[in-house]
Parts: sequence; structure tokens; C-alpha cells
Amino acid sequence: MTETPKKLSPTWTPVNPEEAAPSLSIYNSLTKSKVPFVPISGNNVSWYGCGPTVYDAAHLGHARNYVTFDFIRRILQNYFGYDLNVVMNITDIDDKIILRGRQAHLFSEKKKNTSTLNKALIEETVEAWKEYAESMLKLSPTEFSSSNLEDWKIPLLELQTKNLGLEQNPKLSMYLRTSLTGIDAIARAEKNLAEGKSSHDSVGDLLNGNEEIVSLYLDKRFGSDVTEPSIFRTLTQFWEKDFMEDMEALNVLKPDVLVRVTEFIPEIVSFVQKIIDNGYAYESNGSVYFSVNEFDGKNGHFYAKLEPTSKGNQDLLNEGEGSLSIGLSGKKHPADFALWKASKPGEPAWESPWGKGRPGWHIECSVMASEVLGDKIDIHTGGIDLTFPHHDNELAQSEAHFENHQWVNYFMHAGHLHIEGSKMSKSLKNFISIKDALKKYTARQLRLCFLMQRWDAPFDFKASFMEEALSTESTISNFFINIESLSRQWNSDEATFGEGGVRTFCEDEVNLVKELNQAQKKIHSALCDSFDTPSVLKTILSLINKSNIYLRNKTKVSNSNAIMMVARYVSSVLRTFGLNDPTSNVSEIGWNPVSSSSLKPTSTSALQNESVVMPYLNIISQFRDVVRLIAKKDEISKAELLKACDVIRDVQLPKYGVILDDHDEKSLIKLVDPEVLALEAEKKAKLAEEKRLKTLAMKEAAAKKQQARLEAGKLNPSEMFKTATRAAEFSEWDENGIPTKDSEGQEITKNKKKKLQKEYDNQKKLHEEYLKSIQS
Amino acid sequence: MTETPKKLSPTWTPVNPEEAAPSLSIYNSLTKSKVPFVPISGNNVSWYGCGPTVYDAAHLGHARNYVTFDFIRRILQNYFGYDLNVVMNITDIDDKIILRGRQAHLFSEKKKNTSTLNKALIEETVEAWKEYAESMLKLSPTEFSSSNLEDWKIPLLELQTKNLGLEQNPKLSMYLRTSLTGIDAIARAEKNLAEGKSSHDSVGDLLNGNEEIVSLYLDKRFGSDVTEPSIFRTLTQFWEKDFMEDMEALNVLKPDVLVRVTEFIPEIVSFVQKIIDNGYAYESNGSVYFSVNEFDGKNGHFYAKLEPTSKGNQDLLNEGEGSLSIGLSGKKHPADFALWKASKPGEPAWESPWGKGRPGWHIECSVMASEVLGDKIDIHTGGIDLTFPHHDNELAQSEAHFENHQWVNYFMHAGHLHIEGSKMSKSLKNFISIKDALKKYTARQLRLCFLMQRWDAPFDFKASFMEEALSTESTISNFFINIESLSRQWNSDEATFGEGGVRTFCEDEVNLVKELNQAQKKIHSALCDSFDTPSVLKTILSLINKSNIYLRNKTKVSNSNAIMMVARYVSSVLRTFGLNDPTSNVSEIGWNPVSSSSLKPTSTSALQNESVVMPYLNIISQFRDVVRLIAKKDEISKAELLKACDVIRDVQLPKYGVILDDHDEKSLIKLVDPEVLALEAEKKAKLAEEKRLKTLAMKEAAAKKQQARLEAGKLNPSEMFKTATRAAEFSEWDENGIPTKDSEGQEITKNKKKKLQKEYDNQKKLHEEYLKSIQS
Repeated sequence: MTETPKKLSPTWTPVNPEEAAPSLSIYNSLTKSKVPFVPISGNNVSWYGCGPTVYDAAHLGHARNYVTFDFIRRILQNYFGYDLNVVMNITDIDDKIILRGRQAHLFSEKKKNTSTLNKALIEETVEAWKEYAESMLKLSPTEFSSSNLEDWKIPLLELQTKNLGLEQNPKLSMYLRTSLTGIDAIARAEKNLAEGKSSHDSVGDLLNGNEEIVSLYLDKRFGSDVTEPSIFRTLTQFWEKDFMEDMEALNVLKPDVLVRVTEFIPEIVSFVQKIIDNGYAYESNGSVYFSVNEFDGKNGHFYAKLEPTSKGNQDLLNEGEGSLSIGLSGKKHPADFALWKASKPGEPAWESPWGKGRPGWHIECSVMASEVLGDKIDIHTGGIDLTFPHHDNELAQSEAHFENHQWVNYFMHAGHLHIEGSKMSKSLKNFISIKDALKKYTARQLRLCFLMQRWDAPFDFKASFMEEALSTESTISNFFINIESLSRQWNSDEATFGEGGVRTFCEDEVNLVKELNQAQKKIHSALCDSFDTPSVLKTILSLINKSNIYLRNKTKVSNSNAIMMVARYVSSVLRTFGLNDPTSNVSEIGWNPVSSSSLKPTSTSALQNESVVMPYLNIISQFRDVVRLIAKKDEISKAELLKACDVIRDVQLPKYGVILDDHDEKSLIKLVDPEVLALEAEKKAKLAEEKRLKTLAMKEAAAKKQQARLEAGKLNPSEMFKTATRAAEFSEWDENGIPTKDSEGQEITKNKKKKLQKEYDNQKKLHEEYLKSIQS
Repeated sequence: MTETPKKLSPTWTPVNPEEAAPSLSIYNSLTKSKVPFVPISGNNVSWYGCGPTVYDAAHLGHARNYVTFDFIRRILQNYFGYDLNVVMNITDIDDKIILRGRQAHLFSEKKKNTSTLNKALIEETVEAWKEYAESMLKLSPTEFSSSNLEDWKIPLLELQTKNLGLEQNPKLSMYLRTSLTGIDAIARAEKNLAEGKSSHDSVGDLLNGNEEIVSLYLDKRFGSDVTEPSIFRTLTQFWEKDFMEDMEALNVLKPDVLVRVTEFIPEIVSFVQKIIDNGYAYESNGSVYFSVNEFDGKNGHFYAKLEPTSKGNQDLLNEGEGSLSIGLSGKKHPADFALWKASKPGEPAWESPWGKGRPGWHIECSVMASEVLGDKIDIHTGGIDLTFPHHDNELAQSEAHFENHQWVNYFMHAGHLHIEGSKMSKSLKNFISIKDALKKYTARQLRLCFLMQRWDAPFDFKASFMEEALSTESTISNFFINIESLSRQWNSDEATFGEGGVRTFCEDEVNLVKELNQAQKKIHSALCDSFDTPSVLKTILSLINKSNIYLRNKTKVSNSNAIMMVARYVSSVLRTFGLNDPTSNVSEIGWNPVSSSSLKPTSTSALQNESVVMPYLNIISQFRDVVRLIAKKDEISKAELLKACDVIRDVQLPKYGVILDDHDEKSLIKLVDPEVLALEAEKKAKLAEEKRLKTLAMKEAAAKKQQARLEAGKLNPSEMFKTATRAAEFSEWDENGIPTKDSEGQEITKNKKKKLQKEYDNQKKLHEEYLKSIQS
């Protein structure tokens, strides 16, 4: 045997890493550019997201914000494989909460404690109204001296006219609306009182029509008496739960860690103390303020990293300070902001080294994020409206506390949501609540719509965008329905092998997989490009289009491998985006979460499938109850038993898409889409109704005919030739009343006689029928 | 207002990419080292895995191989986020398949066609036996001339003794076992024939005892007559389905694309032709051989990249060529190997430019991989025993065809599996089939055991390893059970908020999350280190241990966030490893696939819940059928109706854990665990049986008593004092037979008389009863 000659060992060349797939870059508000994403600690990613201030219903703008960061979170976690640690706060102490809590409390107490409508209440309401008009509309009370309330509207309408046009002040519009509604309610109350209608209902009508006006009035007078902390807690707990329900309905994942401000007061106090100790804050009149001048430019610090141009923007600063805290003396510089606010009477308060007070708005996020995530955070997220001063102040506080320069590495701001061109905000009350939106669209449709926009771009919510989302949804759904119906065929085919020797994974299949691979490459690049979800969806639609062409061009798909790869991949992308339906069952194909193998829920226990199984158990149980009741009677009714059987088949099971196909001894069970079944039933019902109406019309016609016959039969045949209309024709009649001679006395001809006899016989028959009918 | 002084724009420093998380390296058989994994085409990974040759049951060695590449596939896909394209082949043409198919066919025909035991059959079997002993044991037929078959065992036992000890030849042991079993069957057949027992059963006993021996004998004589292709196809289809069932049972994902050799013959022919055209192969006697010498060292090619030291290893080469193809003349060099084999009669054949033939073993993988995945592949996998010559020849063929130098970038070989220290292989028949293994352990337990070894290391399957796997499983299960029971409490607590102002996410929780983050870092590094799953599992166990300590140290866990993060993470790692139970329902926590939110299957369509709902639909439908049949009869039977109602309550629904609690008009539905219900039913049945037996025993005792009473009543009271035993006491009796004088002639005392009268009355009563009983 000749030995193979020895050679050098083989060489191996790696793929050039520069040719490797792109990696993730994120648009960072701190750099105003896309930068490569590198977490601080290996594969771990720490993330702090600003949560809601809980005092009102969440609106579509919130939906966009939280859904956006939900799909980004899912992409980071499920597509890029990072180990995330997501913290979100609930702001449950805040000037807005204090005001809303106190006002709602005082207003409802007022309503409860006023049993009947009286002059004093109307006068008080008028006083409140005038105060409102003076402070909100800047109108002098003297303008409202007329005794005719209609006159009061004149200055309001003048203001409204001025405020029209492009540059309108939406807040002013709202104040005007509130004032006008108030006048009408006062007018009604005066009328009621004059007419003696002074029930509690008319109290409600007056006060509800002036709710905001009276609430402000009462709060101004009695706000400081409201001391019971549970008043605020009831409000925040209600709205926190409401928010969480909205998030669940939107399929937004819960944060890993949820923190509430009121639970972190001691930590906030010591955090503030440290900032004072570091020389960046000062106490004044029981409050503590951050000194922007001491911080900015010192020790390498920079104030307002996110929006340097907003530095010193007093409107934004005031909004950030809160309405209960504007104009408090003590700030050394107008740009300074509160870390700790001394509480006045009627404001919740905690002990601190500076007296009783409560945390400022911005400090909570610095403290809670640091407590849970440490002194450096990978990602901080929030709505774009929070950029300045909230997020800039957070950065300043934290960097002042830790004496570091990059507390957050990646700051992401979800783009603003407008409604048909105009801004939406809580104060304008033009918002669509999440619950309203979910009455019109499904969570999946809303999410699809948000995914079709770049997450960081402003988005003008218009009907046309929703139509696009709905059309995308239906394209994807149709693709899945198609695959599912084919896969039922494949599953039954699987048991048998194709004809031996025939290749089934052919050029078409190879090409479809190539299309898939190209789509995967495109989608990877798009996701790496700061989560470019609109491009991903476009690529998915184009891949589905190519798959549909593949399916259309084949007379029979005998190898499902390629098309199933596409279906699995499309499903996985949809799941990554959170487009799965969290309430539906598991399926490998479709919107739903993947089951690693097949969709065999083989658990036979009803307990584990309660909600699915219960309707059927109810049917069994009810049917059985009916049968038992019938069986226990002395006389068993065949008709009742069969009726019960029919109700199951015709009414109960079709609701769930179950058809029972009756055969002589055994019925067959068929499953179909209940909606399709409902449509068919509707069609059937329509046909049946048409038939019923036709039969009815025919019966009516027959009854009319019969009625006419009976009417005609009333005449005795012996009288029929003697009636006023006929008697003139003849001159003589026989014993039966049949004419024998005509009017001229001539014998009736044989022929004529025959005819008359026939007439007579007919009438005789009719008359007999008539006699019979009146007898019965 | 003082303006904040303008400053330079803020600076931003990215994390140093060198401090980023490690990335994946894979142990590559081509470099014999761990090398960074970089796919050829971005995020797409092409993967060709060698599938089974389908002619026998798959064993535990296969299980390890396929489970190993299954969890590596899942890690690449679900943890590292690659888009995979996994192709696997089925080898459904091969010398082993031809031999097994022909032999099984000839053997079963022989058995079928021999109706009775006869001398000729025994002689033929003896001839086959001697031929076997000669060729397998190298013993001369002259050693078996004695008429006493026991003598034939002597040389066999001598051989067996020689073969004992450490250096035993396992094949020889097997041949000896087969021969000894054969002699015994022949001896039994001779005895049967002598005793006139010649039924078909005794034919079976003789032939089955010599199955391998007779099969070889028949194949040698009649193998070439077997021409029907369906004989081979039936065999391969049976074992392919069997293999797929095994894989499903092991929770191994199906390949994306499955290819069968017999479906790619034309592609193989043209691939071979190209190699000839490129000058690396030659035709000879209708076969085509790869010329190792023409290839090795030419145009930069290298032969046997994986195992250069095995070049020219004739044993391995021969095994690769197949038993039907050894010794065929025509090879220019012993190291050359067949690309195309001319088929002899009795061997399946396809047309080719070189005459009728069939593909060689190695060529199929080169062709199918290239057809589906193109001219370069990222990953090729297979068992370590396939390295040389199969994989080395594949590489040579493909590089000869494409004239490239690195057809595969990463070659991964799963480590060998030994059983308690010794090699397992099909030829030795010492294998544990997958089905046998699954009788003893669950798929999850086996997978855990494989995960606890490095995938590329040899693994000696021992009971102690399984014990370790079982203990790991139970630690994890207990952790989940604990969390689940706690989470039920948390869910009910969720509705209520904690006492306002008390922080619940405290230091303990922060520390637990830190432990989690450290575990995540370790696990990421381990997975990047060529899928070091044993380290991952160790880290998981340690994390669970720390979590258990956390739970033990808390009197009450009032904030579930931290521990739920751990539970979710552990679950996700287990799912990534394929340790989920594919047949169970969805749950966020545990082994099962994740549902992104909760487990509310609110879909009401039966179609979408087919398998869950079907049993209940069957109950409805059957019950209704019964009721309809009863109702249609002329006489409706109350008893039948009520019986049908009882069967539902007592038999059908309890199977699914449904209790119907009957009330007068409406029954209540209760859901319980069907197992608990079964236990209760068992207990109830046991109690009922005990009660039944007790009642029975009491009845029997009563009957016996009654029997005795009747027996006693046979005696007429007038005769009772005159019986042999009593007459001696007395001397005179009255007309009723009651004694009046005692044996001494004395009058019976009054007292005594009273007693005798009572005795008499008693007996009278008994006798009357007796008379009554015989009357009826």
C-alpha cells in the first residue's frame, strides 16, 4: 500500500469581522445623533423609564410613548438578546395631584352636604364664577352686573371671536367654554328656584355645570384645611390601577421594577442633603433649591445637556416647578429649581432636616433610578415633552450627587403625538383616552400604527394612518390564514411520503429561502439602525407578497419547508414587536407566542383550560338539566326533548363555531370560524324571512279570495235572478227561481237556459259553502 | 433676569467597545481550537447537519448527537439572535439499507412459505449455520461433524474463553452469541421433529433462533433476485418516521429543510460529472472514484483536513465504502473512494452516464448541502465518528467541485457517548434505544444530563450522571413551585397597595437583582465560550440557591419584582435550552414557552382550541344522540334518559376534572384536578366496596342464623321432650307432650313446669316458622 505523502496542516481563514453583520446604533438625545450601543456592564442593560403622574386617565399620547418603549424593550431583549433591567416610577406626589385631590374632595363634600337648591348656593356659585372670569379671562367683575345672565355672555363671545384664527390660544378657548357652560347652569338654577324645583338633583345640575369653577373657589378658601393623606392616596391608587389596566390592554410589558415616589422619601431626603453637601444646593425658607449657577461649568459639569437652548426658559421652568410652588420666595436665581418643597397647610408633608415638606418633581427620578440601578444607567427614556426641564434637571441633580459627568449614557425620547394636526395635552382636554382609542381599534392595530412611524419622530395621528395599519394587519392575517389552511393539508400529507425519487425542495423553494434570507438581512440592518421599525414592516410586507406569488404559481406545494420558514420568521418578528395577542392561545404560526414544537395542548384537565372549556360545560350541564326535568315528569314529552336537541344544534353551538351535522344515529362535529357561521346564519335567516313573507302574502291572498267567495255565497240561488240588477232581464221564473221567460215574455232559449242553469248551480254551491261557514 | 452664561456644548463619552460583552467563539474541528464565530452573510447562518441512515432504531448516542445540536441551534437562534437556515438529510440509500432490506425480505418470505417443520429445513439451517461459523468465527466445518449438537459448542466455548479479558473483541463475542443461540434452536427443532411437533410455530422457533445466520445465507444465494424498489422504500420510510417520532419525543426542533438522497439523484450525477471534469475523479467499471492523489496538494487543496492522521487508514476507508462495495476492482489507489457505484443485481439503481448505479455515501451531503445552501456553508455538524472519512471526503468532493478551499467555515462534532465505560455502536447491539431511554427518563431529564456535559467532550453515560440531572431538575422545579405559590399570593395582594409610604423594594431586593445581573454576565460569558452549558447550569443552580436564601430570610416578600425577575430569567434560559415541555400549557414561569402577558385564553372559537374543546364536544354530541334516539322511540323510557344523565356526571366528565353537583333544577359545575378526582373516586370506590362486603357478611350471618333456626324448628314441640337425649329425664307426658312427671315418677315442680312450658312455646314458634317456610 502506498502511503499518502505527508503535507503541511490545512489552513483556515476566518470571515473578515468587518464583513460581519452591522450592530445596533441608537439615536441618543445626548448626542443628537445615532451612536453605537455599548452597555456599561457586558450584556446587562439598565433602563430607567419615566412613568405616569397618576391623577387622570392616560391618553393616546401616553399610549404612543409606552407602546414605543415596549417594542424597543422587546427588540433589545428578544432580538438583540440583552439582559434588561427595566425600572419605571409612578409619580404619586405632585402639585397637580394635590390640587386635583383637594378640589375633588371639597367639591364632592359640597355637593353631598347641600341637600336643596337655595339662594345662597346660587349666589356663592355666581361669586365663584366671577372670580374665575377675573383670574382666567382677565375680565373685570363690573362687566357682569346686568341682571340678565344672557348679557354676561357678550364679553365672552367677544373674546372668543378675537381668539379665532390660526394663532388661537387653546387654553383661553377652554376657559371660555367652561365659563359659558357655567352661566347656563346658573340660569337653569335660577329658573328652577323660581319654579320651586329645589331638589338635590337641581343642586347637582348647578354644581356639575360649574365643577371646575366651584372647585377652584372652594380650594382657594378651604384647601388648606384638607389634611387627610388618604384623600391623595385614594386618587393616585385609582389612577395607577387605571394606568396599569391600560398598559395591559395595550400589551405593554410590566416594568421589572416599579417604584413609587411616596415610598422613597427618606432616600430622597439624604440624596438632597448630599447635593447640599457637595455645594450645589441651598436651603431657603424650608425648601431646598438646586443652584444652577453653582453647578453649570463647575468641576466639568454642564447644565441642560439635552436642551441647552432652553436654559432659563421661564415658562418651561415654572411648569416644572408646579402650580403650588410658583412665586414662592427664596430662590437665589430664577433658573434654580426645587429639590425639596416646604409644604403649606393642605399639602402633604414629610419630616426633613429643613422642616415639613415634600420632594420636588425632578429629584424623585434621580433618587429612585440610583437606588435601584446604581450610579450609572445605560438607558433613560421618556416622552419628548419631559426633556427640559425634567430630564435636564435629573441629569444635573444626579451628576451633582455622584460628582460624575455621564449619569445616563443613552437618553431616548419618544416623538410627540399630535391629533389631526394639533397638539394633544392634558390641560387642553382634547385628548383621546386610551380606553376610547381601544373601543375603536385593537391594541394590535394601534401598535402597528406606532410601529409604522420612526419611534423618535413626531407623529400626527390621522385616520389615514390607521387605515394603513389596518390594511397591513389584514395582509398579514390573510397570509397566516392561507398558511394555516395549507398546513392542515401538509400535516395530513406528512404521514405519506411523496412518490419515491421526486425532488420536492426545488428551485422555487431555494429561491423563496433566498428571498427570506435577503429580508432577514434587511430587517437586521433596519433594527440596527436605531430600531427602524417602519422599514422592517415594509420588508415583511414585501416578503409576504413574494410568498403569495410563490404560492399562486404552484399548482400544489408538495414541500412546505420553505414557506413554513417564511411563516415562522414573520411570526417571530411580529412577536418581537409585541404584536402577538396576549389573550389568545399559543400557536407556532400567527401573531401568537411561539410554542417550540407543535400546538398540542394535551392537558385534559378542564381546570387548566377553564375559560375555554366553560361555555361547553355550560351547554352540557344545561342540556342535561332540561333532559332530567323532562324525564322526571309523569308524561314525557317527545316534542320537548327534540326541541332541546335542536336548540343545542341551532343556537348554542354555532356561537362557538361548532356545527352538528345530524345523521340517523350519530351526528358529526364540524368546526368553523364562528363569524363565518354567523354570516351564513344571517344569510339563511334572511332567505327564511323572505320565504315566510312570500308564504304569508300567498295565504293572505287565498284568504281574501275565500272571503270574497263567501261574500258572493250569501245570495240564495233562488234569489239570484230576481235581484235589482237582474230582475229586469226576465218576466217569469220557475219554482227554483230560474227564469223561464225573458223581459219581453218570450220563452228562454234552450241555449240560454243551459247557461242560466249553470249560473244557478255555481251560486248554489257558493251558497251551500256560505251556509256551512256560518253554521261552523 | 440674569441669563445663564453660554458654554460649550456638552461632551459625551461612549463605553469603550473593548469593555463590551464577549462575543461568541466556537470550537471548530477544522482548527482544533475555539475561534470567533462570524457568519458569511451578516446575521444569516447556514447550517448543514448529517442526519440518520434509516434502517434501524435510533439509540442514545443518536439522542446525544441530535439533542446537542438542538440546544446549540436554539442558543444561536434565541440567545444570540441569528437567523438560521438548518438543513438535514435522510440517508435513504446505502449498502446497509440494501442488505437489511433484502435480508429482512428474504427471511420473512422464507418463514411465510415454509408451512411445516421438516428435515430439509433443518439441514438447510445447519448448512447456513456452518457457513456462518466458517466465515465469522474462522472455524472449519470439520469441527462440527459430531451427531451430538452439544459437542459443536466445544470449539465455540474455547474461542469464548480466549476472547475474555480486557482486550476482548466485541464483534467476536456477538458472533459467538449468535452461533450458540442458533445451535440451541437447531437442537430444539430436531427434538420437535422427532416428537412429531412440526407446526408452523416450530418453523418460526428454528428460523427466529437463527435469524441473522439464515438471513445471510439466503441473501448470499437469492439477494441478487430482489429487485422490487418498494422493499427498500418501505424499510427507509418506516425508520425515517420512527426517527422523527424519537426526535419529537426528545423535543428536538425539526430542520428547516429536510432532504432525502433518493430525491437528489440527477443533481448527484451532475455534481460527480463536474468533479470528473475538474480532473479529480475517474470512471472505472461503471463506478466513479475520487482520486485522492489528484486532489491532495493540487491547486492549494488539502485532503483530510479534519483528520490528516487518518489518511490511508484502510479500515476506516473500507467502512466508509460500504460492505457491498469492498473489494470491487477499479480503484487506482486504495485511498480513493466511490462517488458513484455501479449496481449489481439486487441493488437499487438509477441511470447515469456511467451505466446503472447509485450514489456513494459521502457525495450525497456535498450535493444536497450545496443545492440548498450554496457553495459555502457556515456550520456543518455531525457525530464525531463521521469525521473520517465521511466529512473529510465531503470537504474534498465539494472543494473539488467548486474549486474553492473552505467549503465549510465551522465544523462541529458532538462528542461520543459511551455506556458505563464501553463503546456503543449499532454493530455491537449493546445500544439503548431512544424509546427504551424514554421509558426510564423524561426527555427533559435526558437533555439536562447532556447539557451538563460539554457538547464536544466524550460522555460516559452512567447512572450517577442521571441522578445529578434528576437532582438538578428537582431543585429547579421546587424553585418554580415556590414562586408559583408565592405569586398566587402576590396576585391577590396586587389589588391592594401596601401601606402608603413603606418602601418594599429594599436593599435585599437590590442585592438579589445584583446577584441576577452577575449570573447573567457569567452565563453570557459561558455561552460565548463555545456553548459552555455545564457552567450555565451551575450558575443557574447557584442563583436559585441565592434566591432561596433570600426567600427564607424574608418573613414576607411584599415586593415580588426582584424574585420574579430571577424566575423569568431562569425560565428563559431553560427555554433557550429546549428544556420546556412542548406538550404542556403556556405559562410565564416554569419550563414552558413564555406567553408575553398572562394565560387568558379568551378566544371563544372552538376551532382555535380544537384539541382542548373536542372531548367536551364529543360528550355533548353523544349525549344528544342518545336523547334523540330515545325521544324518537314510540315509548320513551324514563330510566334510559336518567341513566344517560348519570353517565355524564359519573363517568365522562370526571375524567376531565369536572364535577356536576346536582340540585333540583340546575346542576352546579365544579372544576378540580382530574388526578385528585381519580384518587377520590378510588377512595370512594374502596369505601363502597368495604361497605358492600360488610353488608354481604352481615346478610350471610343472618341467613345462616335463619337457616339454623329453621333447622331447629323441624322438631315438633310435642316430640321435643321425647327425643333420645331428653326422654330419660321424664316418665310421663301430657297430651301436648309436655312432661308431667320426672324420671323418678315425681310430679314436675311448678317452677320446673313453667320452664318446660317456656321451652315448649319457643319450640312451637320455631316449628310454626319451619312449617311456613316449607309451605312457601
